[in-house]
Amino acid sequence: MLGFFDWCLRGIGQVVFQNNPLSGLIILLALFFNSAIYGTICILGVVVATATAILLKADKGMIRDGLFGFNGALVALALVAFTSADFRTGAVPSPYMTVYIVFAAAMTTVTFSSIAALLGPHKVAALTSPFVLIGWLFLFAVLKFDSIHAGPLAKPVSPDQYATDVAYLLPTWYQGIGNAIGQIFFQDNWITGYLIVLGIAINSRISAGMGLIGAAGAALVAVVFGGPEGAIRDGLFGYNAALTAIALGGFFLVLTWRSFIYTLFGIVVTTWLWASIAIFLSPIAMPVLTSAFVLVTWLALIGAPGFKALTLVEPSAATTPEDNKRRYLLDFEERTSGY
Amino acid sequence: MLGFFDWCLRGIGQVVFQNNPLSGLIILLALFFNSAIYGTICILGVVVATATAILLKADKGMIRDGLFGFNGALVALALVAFTSADFRTGAVPSPYMTVYIVFAAAMTTVTFSSIAALLGPHKVAALTSPFVLIGWLFLFAVLKFDSIHAGPLAKPVSPDQYATDVAYLLPTWYQGIGNAIGQIFFQDNWITGYLIVLGIAINSRISAGMGLIGAAGAALVAVVFGGPEGAIRDGLFGYNAALTAIALGGFFLVLTWRSFIYTLFGIVVTTWLWASIAIFLSPIAMPVLTSAFVLVTWLALIGAPGFKALTLVEPSAATTPEDNKRRYLLDFEERTSGY
Amino acid sequence: MLGFFDWCLRGIGQVVFQNNPLSGLIILLALFFNSAIYGTICILGVVVATATAILLKADKGMIRDGLFGFNGALVALALVAFTSADFRTGAVPSPYMTVYIVFAAAMTTVTFSSIAALLGPHKVAALTSPFVLIGWLFLFAVLKFDSIHAGPLAKPVSPDQYATDVAYLLPTWYQGIGNAIGQIFFQDNWITGYLIVLGIAINSRISAGMGLIGAAGAALVAVVFGGPEGAIRDGLFGYNAALTAIALGGFFLVLTWRSFIYTLFGIVVTTWLWASIAIFLSPIAMPVLTSAFVLVTWLALIGAPGFKALTLVEPSAATTPEDNKRRYLLDFEERTSGY
Repeated sequence: MLGFFDWCLRGIGQVVFQNNPLSGLIILLALFFNSAIYGTICILGVVVATATAILLKADKGMIRDGLFGFNGALVALALVAFTSADFRTGAVPSPYMTVYIVFAAAMTTVTFSSIAALLGPHKVAALTSPFVLIGWLFLFAVLKFDSIHAGPLAKPVSPDQYATDVAYLLPTWYQGIGNAIGQIFFQDNWITGYLIVLGIAINSRISAGMGLIGAAGAALVAVVFGGPEGAIRDGLFGYNAALTAIALGGFFLVLTWRSFIYTLFGIVVTTWLWASIAIFLSPIAMPVLTSAFVLVTWLALIGAPGFKALTLVEPSAATTPEDNKRRYLLDFEERTSGY
Repeated sequence: MLGFFDWCLRGIGQVVFQNNPLSGLIILLALFFNSAIYGTICILGVVVATATAILLKADKGMIRDGLFGFNGALVALALVAFTSADFRTGAVPSPYMTVYIVFAAAMTTVTFSSIAALLGPHKVAALTSPFVLIGWLFLFAVLKFDSIHAGPLAKPVSPDQYATDVAYLLPTWYQGIGNAIGQIFFQDNWITGYLIVLGIAINSRISAGMGLIGAAGAALVAVVFGGPEGAIRDGLFGYNAALTAIALGGFFLVLTWRSFIYTLFGIVVTTWLWASIAIFLSPIAMPVLTSAFVLVTWLALIGAPGFKALTLVEPSAATTPEDNKRRYLLDFEERTSGY
Repeated sequence: MLGFFDWCLRGIGQVVFQNNPLSGLIILLALFFNSAIYGTICILGVVVATATAILLKADKGMIRDGLFGFNGALVALALVAFTSADFRTGAVPSPYMTVYIVFAAAMTTVTFSSIAALLGPHKVAALTSPFVLIGWLFLFAVLKFDSIHAGPLAKPVSPDQYATDVAYLLPTWYQGIGNAIGQIFFQDNWITGYLIVLGIAINSRISAGMGLIGAAGAALVAVVFGGPEGAIRDGLFGYNAALTAIALGGFFLVLTWRSFIYTLFGIVVTTWLWASIAIFLSPIAMPVLTSAFVLVTWLALIGAPGFKALTLVEPSAATTPEDNKRRYLLDFEERTSGY
């Protein structure tokens, strides 16, 4: 029972690649700080997805690392966020909607296993792709059943829904960066965002730093290229880029100067592609979710073994940037000392 | 020549996973019962696709099992159904359209080989994905060539095209279930649907039962969640779910209590995703075809080896639920008796 | 330095599968003949993509064969073509747009490595898929940043944007065929098209012939099925089919009567699917690029090992149709003479 508690907290941490129950706990508290509804829904999602993995007798090591839980937490948060009249605080879902969320969270577990199997030979992780796929599919259907009521999708989900003639000010930056981290969990609250960074830093300072670099880099790119101020301050340009930065910046690639520049490149491309996918999806009023992050990170990692300038870390070996680097240097020493 | 006849009948049976010429014959007669045009088009499709496989010297075992034929039959039926003024009976295609159908059916053979190669390492079948892919691609182009005339897509293809304030009555159920089975072959005729169930039962009673459970389950989900009565009675919610039920219910997974619950879960998710994909496709007026079935069944099977609670049956070993179970128990006995 | 020059010219030739610097040079001159802007942009794209591969320490043999360059050249041309007021000559990109093009070209290198890794086990090449994927993604985002100005997408990109009652005349044919080859490089100039054919013929007469057969076959299919004259004369129906013809006609399949008929089949299907995808994309005003070619050629090749009537040539062994055939006959002789 205590184990299950631990696995679920790790599941919350795994959204931002932190296999650490304390990180998960701080992030959960950060959600509650913004809205008790979102905090509770996050628990529902991670519990259902993890329990489904246990019932289906999935790999115990992966369950314990929280790997089956994080997509469930995200899909539950997304379904509430985009069907609530007020995006910021969320609304308590109806009984029908709750059943729907439970099925969606359980389906992320099945999907995670499938995508992991497909990517297995390439030694690349499923990332949040189960959440993106199931999130999109379940959000569409919401619009069609009488018993489930879709909100007005009150939150703009695409840059072209913002005014374009607003000046960039200081809050554009410090709120934009915090909000970008918060938006990973659908939290439109920049203080929550910085609390999540704190939760990451407990486990890895490099990952926390990369998250901030990703969010700040995205804001910079958007400002330079004249993106709308409201979308930047709301963190919309940055939440995908922050995840790309954490993933490429030391977690799935050993951190070196070359891989750091590769990460910066990934941040810029992710920022643009967020806008791109948002525009692509706007005719059907669908949110981007974390699809830009998944796409860029997959492209950057699947091809990495073809580039000798980069050292890929297998999903099962990836722990923290600090630890990945230490092991890599140890390996290097052993190889060069002749053993 | 008699062999070819047998392979084509098996091809018709393979649409619903029945590698049995008598099942294929009964299903073909069920189509003729509804419309001689559809019956003839079904023959054209399966013959072209099977003949293409022979000309390209494909694997003889697969040709004999009818595996190259069923996608050709479906794509031919789809192209006629969605370009006829009257969806129910179909219309005789023009010479141009007939050429087009022949190429589409031949292309499903090429596509089947490719998708089977891609899925080979995962021991999962291509299902009706060649039909879905080629069906969509060839349906789009229809709208653009002067010589091929698209019908008014008279048949609603999405739940939001039905009135929402109609009450559920007895015919909603018994016609809805029959129509769901019929819609697998684009037959808007509930008696034809029950005749197809009879054709399945000749070869496997479990598969026939699963088909009915899938169609009924979908109707139940749609009723509980307030789906439009017309769409339920027309079997639209159910034809994907019926296929998912047959595929997961003993055919590609050994039937146990656990896998049966997994199948029920798949039925519910397929029902919702049919609605979801229908809404996604409605701006371009494209039908869902069997994409919801393919997607859910792939996700459920590709990840199955990661779940010890489920036992996957390889496509080349899958015969009937009854036989799969018998062989599995035999294996189990041998393993536990120490040999 | 001279090496780099050679690799980049080969990169231009690789767009049409010609690993030959002289072919690349003639094609580059053909572009300059139409527009110095496009010629320069083509150089920018191929240089950035090739240099990125060098910086990331990609496989030297692949860099030398120009394999990292051709998608970069295409994406740079596409971004200029679809953001210029005048599609025919192109416009000098703004500094912002130039930065954007550089990132897009570099991203094709990363994407090429990833798609090559995914397709590796199937012994099928990435083709121009990195260009299609990155081209689409970067074109969408263009519409959203203030600093990058999208043109009116002045060039119609779908057959339904042309008048349908224009008669087919001689120029429909000879200009249509030339333009189809030109459109591979976004050159709306039929003389440039024939100069490109000349560049191909320097390296392989069969490939040059196949390109012409593909373009002519596409025009024929479009005429028979009543496609709009303007779209045929502008080469829109043919540029995907020409590439399919070169790829299947001796380059990735040993040329025999059977594979030639298979190639003709591929030409017809590619022509239809170009129209199909154009219509699918028209609500979001996106061009097809070479997606129809990539899709049909992948389907035709990934499944090819399942057809004994066809002999697949691995990407690393594919040189020219003439050489592929010679090596195949040599192999055959050795096998039958008992060694």
